[in-house]
Amino acid sequence: MIYICRKEHFNAAHKLYNPQWTEEKNIEVFGPCCNANWHGHNFELIVTVKGNPDPETGFVIDLKKLSKLIRANVIEKLDHKNLNVDVDFMLGKMASTEHLAIEIWKILDPLISAVSKAKLHCVTLYETPRNFVEYYGEE
Amino acid sequence: MIYICRKEHFNAAHKLYNPQWTEEKNIEVFGPCCNANWHGHNFELIVTVKGNPDPETGFVIDLKKLSKLIRANVIEKLDHKNLNVDVDFMLGKMASTEHLAIEIWKILDPLISAVSKAKLHCVTLYETPRNFVEYYGEE
Amino acid sequence: MIYICRKEHFNAAHKLYNPQWTEEKNIEVFGPCCNANWHGHNFELIVTVKGNPDPETGFVIDLKKLSKLIRANVIEKLDHKNLNVDVDFMLGKMASTEHLAIEIWKILDPLISAVSKAKLHCVTLYETPRNFVEYYGEE
Amino acid sequence: MIYICRKEHFNAAHKLYNPQWTEEKNIEVFGPCCNANWHGHNFELIVTVKGNPDPETGFVIDLKKLSKLIRANVIEKLDHKNLNVDVDFMLGKMASTEHLAIEIWKILDPLISAVSKAKLHCVTLYETPRNFVEYYGEE
Amino acid sequence: MIYICRKEHFNAAHKLYNPQWTEEKNIEVFGPCCNANWHGHNFELIVTVKGNPDPETGFVIDLKKLSKLIRANVIEKLDHKNLNVDVDFMLGKMASTEHLAIEIWKILDPLISAVSKAKLHCVTLYETPRNFVEYYGEE
Amino acid sequence: MIYICRKEHFNAAHKLYNPQWTEEKNIEVFGPCCNANWHGHNFELIVTVKGNPDPETGFVIDLKKLSKLIRANVIEKLDHKNLNVDVDFMLGKMASTEHLAIEIWKILDPLISAVSKAKLHCVTLYETPRNFVEYYGEE
Repeated sequence: MIYICRKEHFNAAHKLYNPQWTEEKNIEVFGPCCNANWHGHNFELIVTVKGNPDPETGFVIDLKKLSKLIRANVIEKLDHKNLNVDVDFMLGKMASTEHLAIEIWKILDPLISAVSKAKLHCVTLYETPRNFVEYYGEE
Repeated sequence: MIYICRKEHFNAAHKLYNPQWTEEKNIEVFGPCCNANWHGHNFELIVTVKGNPDPETGFVIDLKKLSKLIRANVIEKLDHKNLNVDVDFMLGKMASTEHLAIEIWKILDPLISAVSKAKLHCVTLYETPRNFVEYYGEE
Repeated sequence: MIYICRKEHFNAAHKLYNPQWTEEKNIEVFGPCCNANWHGHNFELIVTVKGNPDPETGFVIDLKKLSKLIRANVIEKLDHKNLNVDVDFMLGKMASTEHLAIEIWKILDPLISAVSKAKLHCVTLYETPRNFVEYYGEE
Repeated sequence: MIYICRKEHFNAAHKLYNPQWTEEKNIEVFGPCCNANWHGHNFELIVTVKGNPDPETGFVIDLKKLSKLIRANVIEKLDHKNLNVDVDFMLGKMASTEHLAIEIWKILDPLISAVSKAKLHCVTLYETPRNFVEYYGEE
Repeated sequence: MIYICRKEHFNAAHKLYNPQWTEEKNIEVFGPCCNANWHGHNFELIVTVKGNPDPETGFVIDLKKLSKLIRANVIEKLDHKNLNVDVDFMLGKMASTEHLAIEIWKILDPLISAVSKAKLHCVTLYETPRNFVEYYGEE
Repeated sequence: MIYICRKEHFNAAHKLYNPQWTEEKNIEVFGPCCNANWHGHNFELIVTVKGNPDPETGFVIDLKKLSKLIRANVIEKLDHKNLNVDVDFMLGKMASTEHLAIEIWKILDPLISAVSKAKLHCVTLYETPRNFVEYYGEE
């Protein structure tokens, strides 16, 4: 078993705001992250896949294909978008990095299994170079 | 003469949209950057100051003071904000990295001259790790 | 379960020197790292916490609070300090990156459990970009 | 148990080409990576070792010794070389990052056990900043 | 006047070898860089353009267009190629980073002037993170 | 004319302390940087040399030779040292990054001219990733 990783990026706007709370409570909990007119980030996404190298190619998975799959199914939906408004799978959810990483997992997990014998192992998502999350599925 | 640099960062939302153009022309020119619901970036700002080291401190300028000055006068106004809507000195201007760097220069240039014998030399502004501008004032 | 990470930094002096050894043995084992007048590093510290996102905030832990907790209890004691002389919890210990990461774990583990339902998962400590350690507690 | 990491680098040429396939199939599968006249990369190698700190040194393993061991046994054989032609342990294998990481593990695992009580834990190999693999041995 | 920069990358093989010298002299001067079977690098290319922002777009030059122009005219010819063998504009020249940066300038300078009022200012080319060149044209 | 750069690194301890001032004034001006027991940094040094490529080698200067020259004459004197106590050319000077860059220039400028037709152009010195200086000689 070996783990192979592909890094992609996207730029998006979001805010952290709980509509069931008062304005005061939102400001108290989220501070500048609940700014009504949004803020944004350059997100970095690392997708880790595990499997055994194919003897004919030496590949666990073809990274060009993995890159295309991530771009078509995740980056296209997030890049230059508003996470709270424009992204169907984030509607009704707090637009935290945690939730976004979990939703990216849910999209990629079946797609990777469908096109290869390899399995999704981890979704790592950097909101900033100092704040990031790792999700390994429901374990 | 020696040049000394301080790097700061902020996260902001923006869009590129010319209100005097049709929707079609905006999409043609700006592509996904004119998304109505905004997108955003982790900006990195490098401020370069030039001068001679003070013999008593060894400093061209005290970087702790320069950092505070940048944070109070630039970062506070930009971090977790919308460049098109929330930032007084960007109102009515295209929210491009070029314009933002020029406006940051206009703010910092007199402030640095007021607190030290050193002079602002360059404002470098990274919108992404691959897209950035440098501004040296009106020369 | 999801893992969330916060990166902080500090600058400190140290030396590697075993007082129960001769000068010759110290030089033989530690080389330039035992220089009598110290040397130093820009340390980078990554604290990883694991838990489930709170449904109201979307957070495993509020990273602003985690950052404050790390700064107040770890960075304050280490930044611009001498690890061998100025830092109470390192006195009498070899000032290796390994020992420092273990002591940082001992400080943060109960504090994180006290303020949230999340648990400390890993302390990663970079002494240089090429030399670093990871500690997951006594497992 | 604590994990300690050392990062090294090397520059090498390679191509991905299966000699049992037609030219067309190679181009279809490997695209520009099968360019007849080679291409190359700046590889970054991270070697992670696990163990307990020695009470006299504070070290799991002396990173200066680990660095020398990696350089003498791995970097010397790969740096400024052609992975398909010049490297004995890659002959007859597809020159993928996966295979290279596995072969580096096979070289380092017995050597690290021979010189210390610590054990090799992981070989991480970056082909580019966006494409990399992790290998933890035959588990 | 403001300067705007776009960073692109490519992976290529090369060797440093002067065919008018003996094998011994090549080894003496170029060391492992003259390895007969090539080695390679992940090159990073930064193209800096200078001009005034267009009042309608806020752009000195549209970075999406600049990126396409660099990719079509430079990256396409270099990526996954052998600089000594596959690249027409390097034939007969020593494949040093210096020469490559100068040739990239010669390609881009007229193309940028043809599509915009902005001017090429600098070509920066990283062979490795520690070795790089800057070329400002024939000044 | 083309500019070629080599990046090296060293780890050192220092403090900022003016012995002609009271303890109070030192603390007021330098804050934690005057900690009596020192602190330290991973310094990054970039040396930029300008000249014309030699037609036989394609080099402005052989970067392997430049690296050796920097290591023998600068890094050896600074790495794992105390800038205030151990370094002859810093004795009696404030150990600021500005002064250190100027002294490195004074060492390297004649040495580079002695071994090549190229000239030293710039010394860039990073104290931290956010604080750095550039020195171009007495111009």
